[in-house]
Amino acid sequence: MNGPLHRVVIIGGGFAGLYAAKTLGRSRAGVTVVDKRNFHLFQPLLYQVATGGLSPGDIAAPLRAALRRQRNTEVVLGEVTDLDITNRRVLLSGGAALPYDSLILATGAQHSYFDHPEWEAKAPGLKTIEDATEIRRRILYAFEAAERSTSTAERQEWLTFLIIGAGPTGVELAGAIGEIANKTLREEFRRIRPEEAHIILLDATSRVLPGYPEDLSRKAERSLIRLGVRTRSGVRVTAINDTGVTIHAAHSEEHITARTIFWAAGVQASSLGRILANHTSVPLDRSGRVMVSPDLTIPGHPEIFVAGDLAHLEHDGKPVPGVAPAAMQMGRYAARAILARLDGSPAPAPFRYLDKGSLAVIGRAAAVADFGAVHISGYLAWLAWLFIHLMYIVGFQNRILVFIQWGFHYLTFHRGARLITGGK
Amino acid sequence: MNGPLHRVVIIGGGFAGLYAAKTLGRSRAGVTVVDKRNFHLFQPLLYQVATGGLSPGDIAAPLRAALRRQRNTEVVLGEVTDLDITNRRVLLSGGAALPYDSLILATGAQHSYFDHPEWEAKAPGLKTIEDATEIRRRILYAFEAAERSTSTAERQEWLTFLIIGAGPTGVELAGAIGEIANKTLREEFRRIRPEEAHIILLDATSRVLPGYPEDLSRKAERSLIRLGVRTRSGVRVTAINDTGVTIHAAHSEEHITARTIFWAAGVQASSLGRILANHTSVPLDRSGRVMVSPDLTIPGHPEIFVAGDLAHLEHDGKPVPGVAPAAMQMGRYAARAILARLDGSPAPAPFRYLDKGSLAVIGRAAAVADFGAVHISGYLAWLAWLFIHLMYIVGFQNRILVFIQWGFHYLTFHRGARLITGGK
Repeated sequence: MNGPLHRVVIIGGGFAGLYAAKTLGRSRAGVTVVDKRNFHLFQPLLYQVATGGLSPGDIAAPLRAALRRQRNTEVVLGEVTDLDITNRRVLLSGGAALPYDSLILATGAQHSYFDHPEWEAKAPGLKTIEDATEIRRRILYAFEAAERSTSTAERQEWLTFLIIGAGPTGVELAGAIGEIANKTLREEFRRIRPEEAHIILLDATSRVLPGYPEDLSRKAERSLIRLGVRTRSGVRVTAINDTGVTIHAAHSEEHITARTIFWAAGVQASSLGRILANHTSVPLDRSGRVMVSPDLTIPGHPEIFVAGDLAHLEHDGKPVPGVAPAAMQMGRYAARAILARLDGSPAPAPFRYLDKGSLAVIGRAAAVADFGAVHISGYLAWLAWLFIHLMYIVGFQNRILVFIQWGFHYLTFHRGARLITGGK
Repeated sequence: MNGPLHRVVIIGGGFAGLYAAKTLGRSRAGVTVVDKRNFHLFQPLLYQVATGGLSPGDIAAPLRAALRRQRNTEVVLGEVTDLDITNRRVLLSGGAALPYDSLILATGAQHSYFDHPEWEAKAPGLKTIEDATEIRRRILYAFEAAERSTSTAERQEWLTFLIIGAGPTGVELAGAIGEIANKTLREEFRRIRPEEAHIILLDATSRVLPGYPEDLSRKAERSLIRLGVRTRSGVRVTAINDTGVTIHAAHSEEHITARTIFWAAGVQASSLGRILANHTSVPLDRSGRVMVSPDLTIPGHPEIFVAGDLAHLEHDGKPVPGVAPAAMQMGRYAARAILARLDGSPAPAPFRYLDKGSLAVIGRAAAVADFGAVHISGYLAWLAWLFIHLMYIVGFQNRILVFIQWGFHYLTFHRGARLITGGK
């Protein structure tokens, strides 16, 4: 049989979009992947770029290269400005329109500074390659400025690093800065001792890694302390300015002076969720995520799927977490649902996130892993983390390059990509 | 014996500065290396970053890491604003002053657009890491824009690449773009054929690689033609604007329409030469290079050495070329001259550049090498190029990473660092 070509447009080339496209690779459908960047980014390792352990190219794979073999798939570098739901078209900046029969929205999330967008310049977050090289610049520059400084007070300000938010990103960033100060930079300076840096990890909840079981939180905190990181839980940030951060904890206010501040505290969904809600009746959650049906479509529009961090779905009252494995599973699910329709097979059972576990790394040979019934930490958790990340990173060459750089790092704490570029 | 510490200040951490510092590593002198960047850059491979073959981190080594073991050496990240020759001090932005007993100036060169600084925005050159990622962005973006374009004329404009200047940098850049169009991007696009790109290499002289013997120029040109590069010799650029380049050749003017233009035509010495000339009687050449004495010092100031691309010195009426080996040799020479004075040994014989040969690479397994009496080209020249560059690149990890990426490239034409970042 040869009906008219079924056109699937996928917006976003992250984990959800890429895995959806790959699942549709050998189908009869025509697939178009739209992204404003030309590469798929392996976000779980972005903090390693921010801390000079890996180069941007090591954790990015050009989308065209990743999908080159799929003759039914094309990649469009472009920005989506609007959706024309009635006529089933995606509108791109520059005026082009892409018609679709099925649509998968997978544009993910970005930082949220809640009601304080002005904090972004003082406390950058970590979502893009540019964020990562900017954070890298600020970390390395702080040590340089401290070395050059002639005032003890100013030197101390340059050697103080504040990380706001003790989820996995904040913990990984704080741990890596601790390792840089205590190991990587050892003996490289003549006037300062990098190991005297103050690295402070703040969180509004009562412990680090609040999404993990309590025993692993405690272990993570112990590993952080060994790397010179002090954690302050139960504190709320009320102001960020040029001199540092004002925090509020148990009826008292305090100002922490620091020149280098990073934000790992909150995310909000991409603005495409708002565009979709404007054209349909689908509700958004507080972070702007689209409240999808159990089959990842939206009410009244079985042709529109939402996957990855842009989607809000609950199992037994708990939301599916905004992590890479969930995005991959959602992307694959949406693609399979489309394939089932094309084949006339029955629709798959409602989407169910299969939680294979969570991992966070704190430094060399230190990590925590929550595999549900089994909690592990230390060397074994770190090995599991290493293996899983190498397995999922896109591109054979990237896998080799990352492996080698981790090997060097393991042996020498060496961080090769320590470049201060761009910036002021 | 224990006299007062002899302080050597080296300005610039390029080939001349780094090799001078290393030569002084085990001496009694106190050494300070000042650079405005925190890394030593392996400039001969910068075009590979510009064409997505290597990542910035692969060809950069943090200066502090490279000099960490030298306990007598410190690194200062800073910008030199002036020299106080009378009191022997280097003035840094921010107000600090570094006293010296011996001074080595090695701040190199930058692009020169002759009397047309306004051309820089339209036709960037290749001297810094930021230049390289900007050129990479423009090359990759041009193919994306061509794919998206709906007009045949516009598409052709996006697929036209102009490189001005057919010295080694221009030839290497043109060859790499040819390889990207003909090999790397093959089958990645659905609407354009990247191999239909026009890559045009312009030069005012009569042949490509004018500094090389004629037979090697012809061989290089043949290799370029095989990669789809057309060379236009004997043409002078008279205008660069948004639509392309106007060239003048043998009494006729012509406008070549192109969206992507690169500049590899001229360099001028760093502005430190001008500062030095303002305070002393030393003359500069037309490009702003310092006319040094045969011992690399300047008249009346035996304590001031100039090395690398900032220095102008002639042997038998021919200037020492502005290449990495000459810079290394000059840096080492200046350091040894200082060591001889400290030891009370006789001064070394006047500096003599030992020309071990020149190499330019045109693509995979294609290069030309001029070893004086012996001219080689093709595979053998490429192997020589590969071996020599791997040997001199700074940092063991970088050597391994570059080697692996070249291995992949050799087998598959794969270019891993194909990221469109930054920019508009």
